[in-house]
Amino acid sequence: MKFKAIIHVRPKPEIRDPQGEAVAGALRTLGLSIEGVRAGKEIVVHFDAADLTAARAAVDTMGKELLANPVIEDYSADVAAA
Amino acid sequence: MKFKAIIHVRPKPEIRDPQGEAVAGALRTLGLSIEGVRAGKEIVVHFDAADLTAARAAVDTMGKELLANPVIEDYSADVAAA
Repeated sequence: MKFKAIIHVRPKPEIRDPQGEAVAGALRTLGLSIEGVRAGKEIVVHFDAADLTAARAAVDTMGKELLANPVIEDYSADVAAA
Repeated sequence: MKFKAIIHVRPKPEIRDPQGEAVAGALRTLGLSIEGVRAGKEIVVHFDAADLTAARAAVDTMGKELLANPVIEDYSADVAAA
């Protein structure tokens, strides 16, 4: 079966996010009233798996083994048949 | 009023995405059956605006003026009171 996963990788709340801080500064120069910005990644993966359980396991592997650095990042994912 | 916007910035479908291709290659080395990967950004912004209409206009400004490169990227956003 074909699946589509949208994997969100975000800096952990207690970790400094220099990219987000830079974006916040740049947005303020546009005259916007910005409180804070966190910059993360969104990775869309199309893949094959036997069933939804196997697909979820594959996405956990992607997040843990490759996409997120568990020291500084959290990840979450939406998985659905494509 | 305080608002939270989640802004998704993705490479346009017709544009090559070297970062996504690199991720696809790495995921295949984990033994996964990957068809394709697109790598985008997810930017979470906390900001002030007068009302929801003003908040949506502010998010449009963020997307067009700063966060997305309209030549190669699309953006979409979810805006809600925080």
